[in-house]
Amino acid sequence: MISVEQHLTRILETVKVIRPFEQGVLDAQGCVLAEDVTARGSLPGFTNSAMDGYAVHAADVVGASAEHPVVLPVVNDIAAGNTNALSLAQGQTMRIMTGAPMPRGADAVVVVENTDGGVVKVAIRAASVVGQHVREVGEDVEEGVVVLRRGTLLGPGQIALLAASGVSRVRVVPRPRVVVISTGDELVEVGQKPGFGQIVDSNSVMLTAAVTSVGATPYRVGGVADDARTLMDTLEGQLVRADAIITTGGVSMGAFDTVKEVLSRVGTVQFDKVAMRPGMPQGFGVLGDDEVPVFTLPGNPVSALVSFHVFVAPALRAMAGRPEPSFPPGYVPAVAAESFRSVPGKMEFVRVILDDDRARLAGGQGSHMLGALAAADALAVIPPDVVEVDEGDSLECLPLLGRDGQ
Amino acid sequence: MISVEQHLTRILETVKVIRPFEQGVLDAQGCVLAEDVTARGSLPGFTNSAMDGYAVHAADVVGASAEHPVVLPVVNDIAAGNTNALSLAQGQTMRIMTGAPMPRGADAVVVVENTDGGVVKVAIRAASVVGQHVREVGEDVEEGVVVLRRGTLLGPGQIALLAASGVSRVRVVPRPRVVVISTGDELVEVGQKPGFGQIVDSNSVMLTAAVTSVGATPYRVGGVADDARTLMDTLEGQLVRADAIITTGGVSMGAFDTVKEVLSRVGTVQFDKVAMRPGMPQGFGVLGDDEVPVFTLPGNPVSALVSFHVFVAPALRAMAGRPEPSFPPGYVPAVAAESFRSVPGKMEFVRVILDDDRARLAGGQGSHMLGALAAADALAVIPPDVVEVDEGDSLECLPLLGRDGQ
Repeated sequence: MISVEQHLTRILETVKVIRPFEQGVLDAQGCVLAEDVTARGSLPGFTNSAMDGYAVHAADVVGASAEHPVVLPVVNDIAAGNTNALSLAQGQTMRIMTGAPMPRGADAVVVVENTDGGVVKVAIRAASVVGQHVREVGEDVEEGVVVLRRGTLLGPGQIALLAASGVSRVRVVPRPRVVVISTGDELVEVGQKPGFGQIVDSNSVMLTAAVTSVGATPYRVGGVADDARTLMDTLEGQLVRADAIITTGGVSMGAFDTVKEVLSRVGTVQFDKVAMRPGMPQGFGVLGDDEVPVFTLPGNPVSALVSFHVFVAPALRAMAGRPEPSFPPGYVPAVAAESFRSVPGKMEFVRVILDDDRARLAGGQGSHMLGALAAADALAVIPPDVVEVDEGDSLECLPLLGRDGQ
Repeated sequence: MISVEQHLTRILETVKVIRPFEQGVLDAQGCVLAEDVTARGSLPGFTNSAMDGYAVHAADVVGASAEHPVVLPVVNDIAAGNTNALSLAQGQTMRIMTGAPMPRGADAVVVVENTDGGVVKVAIRAASVVGQHVREVGEDVEEGVVVLRRGTLLGPGQIALLAASGVSRVRVVPRPRVVVISTGDELVEVGQKPGFGQIVDSNSVMLTAAVTSVGATPYRVGGVADDARTLMDTLEGQLVRADAIITTGGVSMGAFDTVKEVLSRVGTVQFDKVAMRPGMPQGFGVLGDDEVPVFTLPGNPVSALVSFHVFVAPALRAMAGRPEPSFPPGYVPAVAAESFRSVPGKMEFVRVILDDDRARLAGGQGSHMLGALAAADALAVIPPDVVEVDEGDSLECLPLLGRDGQ
């Protein structure tokens, strides 16, 4: 029996960051930059007005006030998108819109609210100072500087900065492509009515959704029969498109545990009992020339999803180049709303419903109990040396994927 | 001038939950159920073994121990997926795997670890009790009960429960389809080099990513010139596929603010100054027979993204049927790591970098400053009556979308 930390450490020491790939900036959302990115142009790219108003020589409006407005001729209109380089002579003004290029010579903008809004001549009712309401070229970003560093996660703001700086394609760590295979002669496809002895293949659907929830790209193969040849062929066929493979089922102590039988022969996948509940039987290793990581999760649905949270999600994040805290990742604190017992010597993952920070049991805790799993908000993580949790005790909880709608 | 709360309230009172649609369970990930869902079958659907071992009559193994094993003939093997209804006579046993149907008559399972693993006859080394390691039909979910209620957000666990209960399609609130339009003669498409007076259309890229980040489906139209006819035609053409429309630009005090010009004529969109910085010029209303909500955001990129967080994201969540706390939504607490001033009379959204719970300014706070926006983790929300924030003051922060890689 090995500990949860030992199994996770072995996984995180094995998986590698996926080879970077060039993508359009919009397709790179949720990915991590694999390179420092340099601005191809300055921001702003030209000196422009920060407001709607009138471009002036500040010296011309010294002393302007509501009582003593300065009246100047309006010699032009400059809209945003005006691509002509204009010049403003002393003693004149031009109407100018937000984002429009400042005419040469002008050094300030008087906002329209401080004028009479005239279009032939304008009464300016407030003084201005040099640089007021003017955005200088390069004041946000200078051409040639590094705008985003390797390792940056790209969200809306980062993507906007890249695009605005003239960068349309970037090298990023791609989203991991994850093949999901469930195994077992008992499985029927979603939508089919299971006969006696059969069950719907809900595991591959669940794990496909879980892969999506961590920002990776799932390929759902679905149910494969308990036949060594079929399973091996399926695995080999899927390797070409997989950055990782997840299987469920067939890893326990049974006489027909095909996954264990097939992958034990290959020699690169190791099967362990991990001191956790649910989820004790775990396997992990690599397959093929590209050393594709393979996670063989237990077949009980609750065990499979808990295993995904504890082992697969951190591995997929690491493969995507995201910084991942060591175990435990992303815990939220809570308080036990009721007392319950925990199994000694194993890390227990208890399905709980969070009411603010109060955690109560979500229902039946059997590893096949989907009802309680679906009602739960989080997994309360009970360390191996704790056998009894009392009402009011502090808990660390791992939020279940998908609670935020992703 | 209206307050942020007033503008948001008007928006949330106007938008409606999108009409439900039937979808496959896997496609329904991230959606909210529009109906109570009833189990089409029980879980488990048949009484089965919870472990790998031997099905027995518990009465036959009373008093079994390591020293005094009970030896029984093994008359059959039952694998998971065995669809035959078998019967176990008194004084016999069958080897049985996890998930395999219990034979009629058997009332307990002895785990393989408590036996010698025999295949013709087996030495049983521990007693058992009726029901041990047996999963009774319906103990997780009974056929006909409501497994998930209307309003439930569907994540991996909920989707698994639906599939396992025999439900393959469900009525859900679909993801909002959101058309993103940026306006302005100054815009050039991403990847093109802007000339003098031009800028890259980074706003539509940014807002498209932001729409994705809240789990909605974006349609990026991109830049539309400042021409009333073109803009109106574009809006009308997009209405057919839009649950909502977002525009940026053209809503300020300028002489060529086309969005304001066009939509003011229509009469159903209202333009307001909102007491916030950045983001003061805001417009909101509905368009077309289907009363599609239209958000007209300012054109400055920081203003646009802040407006999205504050007004559009809560509206899209409401349209998707998700429960949304009233304003402020989803704040995280922080402590100011430095002192700074805030504008009086306006709610200020300050771009900050969070180092644990310490918030420091991300850089230049101008509404055109994409560099600081891209460096920021969150918006510190400074109420209108606060003009000075001191180091050590408590802050409420709105995490920026995309910081978790979605």
